[in-house]
Amino acid sequence: MNHPVSSGRVTVICGGVGAARMLAGILAVPDVVDAHAVTGIVNVGDDLELHGLRISPDLDTITYTLAGEINPDTGWGLRGESWQAMDSVKRYGGISWFGLGDRDLGTHLFRTQRSSEGAGLAEITAEITRAWGLELRLLPVTEDRLRTTLTIPGDDPSGASAGHPAEPTTEVSFQEYFVHRQHGVAVQGVRFDGAETARPGPGVLEALADAERVVIAPSNPLISIEPVLAVPGVRDALISRRADTVAVSPIVDGAALKGPADRLLTELGHEATVVGVARLYAPLAATLVIDEADAHLADAVAAEGIRPVVTATVMRTPELAAALARTVLS
Amino acid sequence: MNHPVSSGRVTVICGGVGAARMLAGILAVPDVVDAHAVTGIVNVGDDLELHGLRISPDLDTITYTLAGEINPDTGWGLRGESWQAMDSVKRYGGISWFGLGDRDLGTHLFRTQRSSEGAGLAEITAEITRAWGLELRLLPVTEDRLRTTLTIPGDDPSGASAGHPAEPTTEVSFQEYFVHRQHGVAVQGVRFDGAETARPGPGVLEALADAERVVIAPSNPLISIEPVLAVPGVRDALISRRADTVAVSPIVDGAALKGPADRLLTELGHEATVVGVARLYAPLAATLVIDEADAHLADAVAAEGIRPVVTATVMRTPELAAALARTVLS
Repeated sequence: MNHPVSSGRVTVICGGVGAARMLAGILAVPDVVDAHAVTGIVNVGDDLELHGLRISPDLDTITYTLAGEINPDTGWGLRGESWQAMDSVKRYGGISWFGLGDRDLGTHLFRTQRSSEGAGLAEITAEITRAWGLELRLLPVTEDRLRTTLTIPGDDPSGASAGHPAEPTTEVSFQEYFVHRQHGVAVQGVRFDGAETARPGPGVLEALADAERVVIAPSNPLISIEPVLAVPGVRDALISRRADTVAVSPIVDGAALKGPADRLLTELGHEATVVGVARLYAPLAATLVIDEADAHLADAVAAEGIRPVVTATVMRTPELAAALARTVLS
Repeated sequence: MNHPVSSGRVTVICGGVGAARMLAGILAVPDVVDAHAVTGIVNVGDDLELHGLRISPDLDTITYTLAGEINPDTGWGLRGESWQAMDSVKRYGGISWFGLGDRDLGTHLFRTQRSSEGAGLAEITAEITRAWGLELRLLPVTEDRLRTTLTIPGDDPSGASAGHPAEPTTEVSFQEYFVHRQHGVAVQGVRFDGAETARPGPGVLEALADAERVVIAPSNPLISIEPVLAVPGVRDALISRRADTVAVSPIVDGAALKGPADRLLTELGHEATVVGVARLYAPLAATLVIDEADAHLADAVAAEGIRPVVTATVMRTPELAAALARTVLS
């Protein structure tokens, strides 16, 4: 009876881990959605070039997770990894803080080669997901260069702020912050380098326009979802679908389930609660799914102009993910 | 008593496998030469970009061989290899005819990263050889782009020769010919793309000018040694050292020990014997070391204007390589 997504066209705004689990949950509700009608619009602000390779961590995390091949020990990369190439890089004193397993490297080698042949990231991503037997569609939000850049305190290597009376700051890439510094520093600002001129990737605006249900995955609002929205045209396309858009809060009981979303919200002047999330998403989504732990904040969420739905949101098991997906799609 | 290379400065013109063994032999004669005074000037015409990576096969073959880490099963790449990255590339239908083991990949990742940071190939090569504990100096003949290109029959993908009455031909890269087609086609021409504007790499002309003995390694004359000489300035520098230059014939009893040197000599209008080699090297070297199997051709070699020295040239063991090196240095 609770079956409003009849055509099954679902489009999910995605970061990495939280989005991967959300998508897995949605694909586990086959009576409601056909995998071929599910589209993920994926953040590429975390992408990097390293060792000459094109690396798209969020696309890969989603692909590997849905293929059942994500490395369960790390939460990134592939199962059954070996580290011979990295050991070799270490022998030379090369860059080794960004771990690339041997199996995982094959993905980046392929992506880079296809890119050098002129293939776009959307086409390459389709080739990769097809090779893993995935039926959904993953669309990079843009094929243009988009880089999430964070301002953190200290040691500007350029020395530009030397002698300045204020605390010196420096800008680092997302991976420099997230992996190399293990998000252990306070963030003073975030910007999306290249966003002004980036164009939505092939199929992105159509996937927003055509979807019966749009979902904002429980990814980091400020550094996973926001770069997707920063691509000109995407935020407006999403706003126009507000009535059909459901966001899932990545904050449960005042904390992020994974990563630094809670600290980032606070550091950047937001409230690290579902109310803070409601404030960010009210212009974009009609509904915010919050966890039972936050049931007491439902009225405060509603007061921000977004309808709260209370359910279990922590996707500890595939069954819980599927149950959450049913709620999101209903 | 037989000790003319007193300072020990030896410079070797190098291709891959044959040069690696020649260098190993030279380094195994410590009473004559100090490893720090040995320089290899190495062909980079076989280099390629694949999967976005910078690959320098001849430099790596020499490095791995001298480090005692060359893969004994293949003659290229590293011992103890795994192939997880390549298996992953194959999953995607990517380019897999050029085998890159996981350990070996680390070398190309490092080279590509350092190159993207602005380091030159000579500097990167020094970092790589140092990491393997090598004391000799390997110098890429140029840091500019130089690509050995072969003309072979058939299927020009551009269709440029369609309708032409003559047999159609196509140009392929060295690795396309050597690895992908396993040098199984007749070669109609060789050219060194980029040679006109390539500049000798750092230290190259000095290493030729300063050496007490210059050695032309038993590498393929037409596609390993010739691209080194094709870099403007190198051939003239070598000619000016003719009196101190010794070449070792890569042809023994009319055949190449490894690779297609014999067929290539014939296909390109030369004689696939030590006499043919003598004709090629007479302007460059005062002496040509030929194998005992070719002793009967010594007079014919001398008639080409190059002094023949007959000895065992097949470096089947380190001892034989060292014995050959003693002859070359004496």
